[in-house]
Amino acid sequence: MELNNEIYMDNSATTKPYEEVIEAVVDIMRNYYGNPSSSHSYGLKSEKKLNESREIIARTLNCSKEEIVFTSGGSESNNFLIKGFVKRNVHIITSKIEHASVLNTFKELENQKIRVTYLDTDHKGQINLEQLSNSINKDTVLVSIMHVNNEIGTIQDINLIGKVIKEKSIRAKFHVDAIQSYGKLPIDVKKANIDLLSISGHKIHGPKGVGAAYIKKGLNPMPLIIGGGQERKLRSGTENVPAIVGLSIAAEIKHKKLKDNFNKVLALKNYFIKKLKEIEGVKINSDGDSYSPYILNVSFIGVKGEVLLHALEERNIYTSTGSACSSKLQEKSHILQAIGLKEDEIYGSIRFSFSEFNTEKEVDYVIKELKNLMTFLRRLKK
Amino acid sequence: MELNNEIYMDNSATTKPYEEVIEAVVDIMRNYYGNPSSSHSYGLKSEKKLNESREIIARTLNCSKEEIVFTSGGSESNNFLIKGFVKRNVHIITSKIEHASVLNTFKELENQKIRVTYLDTDHKGQINLEQLSNSINKDTVLVSIMHVNNEIGTIQDINLIGKVIKEKSIRAKFHVDAIQSYGKLPIDVKKANIDLLSISGHKIHGPKGVGAAYIKKGLNPMPLIIGGGQERKLRSGTENVPAIVGLSIAAEIKHKKLKDNFNKVLALKNYFIKKLKEIEGVKINSDGDSYSPYILNVSFIGVKGEVLLHALEERNIYTSTGSACSSKLQEKSHILQAIGLKEDEIYGSIRFSFSEFNTEKEVDYVIKELKNLMTFLRRLKK
Ligand SMILES: Cc1ncc(COP(=O)(O)O)c(C=O)c1O
Ligand SMILES: Cc1ncc(COP(=O)(O)O)c(C=O)c1O
Repeated sequence: MELNNEIYMDNSATTKPYEEVIEAVVDIMRNYYGNPSSSHSYGLKSEKKLNESREIIARTLNCSKEEIVFTSGGSESNNFLIKGFVKRNVHIITSKIEHASVLNTFKELENQKIRVTYLDTDHKGQINLEQLSNSINKDTVLVSIMHVNNEIGTIQDINLIGKVIKEKSIRAKFHVDAIQSYGKLPIDVKKANIDLLSISGHKIHGPKGVGAAYIKKGLNPMPLIIGGGQERKLRSGTENVPAIVGLSIAAEIKHKKLKDNFNKVLALKNYFIKKLKEIEGVKINSDGDSYSPYILNVSFIGVKGEVLLHALEERNIYTSTGSACSSKLQEKSHILQAIGLKEDEIYGSIRFSFSEFNTEKEVDYVIKELKNLMTFLRRLKK
Repeated sequence: MELNNEIYMDNSATTKPYEEVIEAVVDIMRNYYGNPSSSHSYGLKSEKKLNESREIIARTLNCSKEEIVFTSGGSESNNFLIKGFVKRNVHIITSKIEHASVLNTFKELENQKIRVTYLDTDHKGQINLEQLSNSINKDTVLVSIMHVNNEIGTIQDINLIGKVIKEKSIRAKFHVDAIQSYGKLPIDVKKANIDLLSISGHKIHGPKGVGAAYIKKGLNPMPLIIGGGQERKLRSGTENVPAIVGLSIAAEIKHKKLKDNFNKVLALKNYFIKKLKEIEGVKINSDGDSYSPYILNVSFIGVKGEVLLHALEERNIYTSTGSACSSKLQEKSHILQAIGLKEDEIYGSIRFSFSEFNTEKEVDYVIKELKNLMTFLRRLKK
């Protein structure tokens, strides 16, 4: 069996924008280029597009449009929502397996003498609710927990986490990094008691350079970017209308097909896992209901992940070793360490991350190539 | 004479993207969607585009590509470059006519007990070099002065300002908000002793949601957005490759035509001013060599700027009363106050801001409509 096309299984790093998104971006660039803050009709036309987009995003999260602030992406949303609530003498909580944009923000704040708790996770990447509850004290202003982990796909039970936080404190805000779950798993900010939430466009076939922050009504984070007072003074800078509209279109498509895609991708992942088990020395790091179907992390024992990645790439199969942002720095994944993988399991790990466009035929081809490669690479090592 | 087209004279608020820019954005979204941080060839292809863009921007400023960091726009660049150098007990300097993204950042820092000097300007919007020199002390870490003012178009002599700063201090960094001058006036960061500089895509027919920061080699601002360590750890977040490439294309076109456009727009502005002088009760607030040709600020005495703006808009002429970002907040322009305009001059002020696409024919039409309108609006008031 030969495939002509390239097999892109790195959708957690970034995705190919939907054609509808690209067309919308072009239309807005060409026909709605006015500054939404301008008083004339060029401005008003752009402002209208902005507000329509805001309504679409709000609907997908079950919040009101006044609770949505547009940003330049997931990292900005995380930085903004976390730093926006931190003052002297407060205490904040996160987990050890967060994305760098959360974890490094916490480390920076720790350097500035803010008290920080990093929650442990079990071998599946789940935080411990008792440890969470015990960590919350009267100074705790923020608990930041990601919904889906970007390397292994662990789904945290955000409904339960929200409940635990709210039972323990009326002060502590619940922030969710939903960048890997938005558009893939259902999110209801009311049901989960979420106060703050981050999303990013380019992970859902939307544009790069755009994201959003949900901020529960009544909350007032300090802005990260100050200036002309756009976005209710919470995020200054001329609004990126083309990308914002593109984001809303991607969000709409994703949410219409959310359940169908979930089932489709889950079946694909399970098929992939079944086939992987035919290969010797393979450890699946994200099998079961507590992981997102979109992420499959696998350790190929005795093989270096980086070597396997490039060998796969020569066969037109695109994957990742860790999260994209850290993969070039060649640091050992803090996530795989936190869940207690052994050295050789970390060393040989590959992340396959799916979109609704991946197929069983692609999986068959990947498996065939993996089998050949593993025999070859392991023989090399002897 | 009738014109079918709309007359867009609000180019300092935002511009229509060049067709070449739109096409590049589409091409990158469709064919180079990989994450530049991914190790595989999809990532490398994107990273290559990123670096080509970086080189183009660097060339336009006479710096090296390692000195360019991409951001989400002018406001982010300003916030990043200013806050990035501020620690306890330092002193910083700016002028009273800066853009809100500089001025409000300074006010915020002042609230945090940072010592701040706001330099006065004369009636032309020029800062006083003696006052600048006298304000610099051993604690001064930053002087932030805009190149071209966004409301009245005043050009500061950045070469001279750089000289004054460097003569007085080896510690103080010189930051230039070049958002209204980049691509319109020549800038040489070496010649002007500039350490830090901000630019924005959407003011030069590039995309919205993208900008750049020039950071002189050896300088290490604290990042505003922390995370995966992109942009040499100075600006985290998945890079907005389509918009960055779009920015570089706009920059390239702008710089190729810089001198021609300057002369063309200057002739247009002078023609406009000559015609305006035929109307009674008109005060030109930006006439002469010390103002950018791209900005023409005019007071129509006895008429409310906002009313005139909407009357012009009904005639398909798009202008602005103040800067776009503050125009909806209906606050009295801090810039027009700082240069000492009288109440009725502020009240009746309109900004016409040009691009290379505006024509004398358009000016003729605007003048004709202005004449009719002024007679009508002034009669109304009696
Ligand atoms: C002088 C000046 N500085 C900064 C900005 C902010 O740029 P941006 O809208 O790209 O955030 C603007 C325009 O709004 C401006 O005219
Ligand atoms: C869980 C998670 N959080 C945050 C981010 C950062 O998002 P962005 O690249 O849009 O800045 C990513 C992806 O890089 C992610 O996977």
